[in-house]
Amino acid sequence: MCEANAYLIHDNQEEMVMSSVDVLEQEEENCWRLVSIFGEQKTIRGRIRSMTLVDHKILFETLPG
Amino acid sequence: MCEANAYLIHDNQEEMVMSSVDVLEQEEENCWRLVSIFGEQKTIRGRIRSMTLVDHKILFETLPG
Repeated sequence: MCEANAYLIHDNQEEMVMSSVDVLEQEEENCWRLVSIFGEQKTIRGRIRSMTLVDHKILFETLPG
Repeated sequence: MCEANAYLIHDNQEEMVMSSVDVLEQEEENCWRLVSIFGEQKTIRGRIRSMTLVDHKILFETLPG
């Protein structure tokens, strides 16, 4: 399976916000809906800094201000 | 392998811009650097509309205006 784990960078630390993410949809500017392969849903405010799919990793960061 | 294929929505059609994408990095607002598992690199201007990782699909859309 090719899901990924999503992390939010907070105080220079990576905090996992959801594991096994399948779907990401940008609902509005810097607001993302995440759905895991288990059907769990979460909304993340921030922007995507980077993704490394082979490493199953998605990095979000909060916006300044 | 868990790479994905990246598409850009253009005139309501999905045009593939890169296959086997491993890394995505947001270089600046709405400017993404894509790197495939083969080391190919490409810069895409637009925003991510959605991703379905289990389906290996990343959808970009150009910004209006």
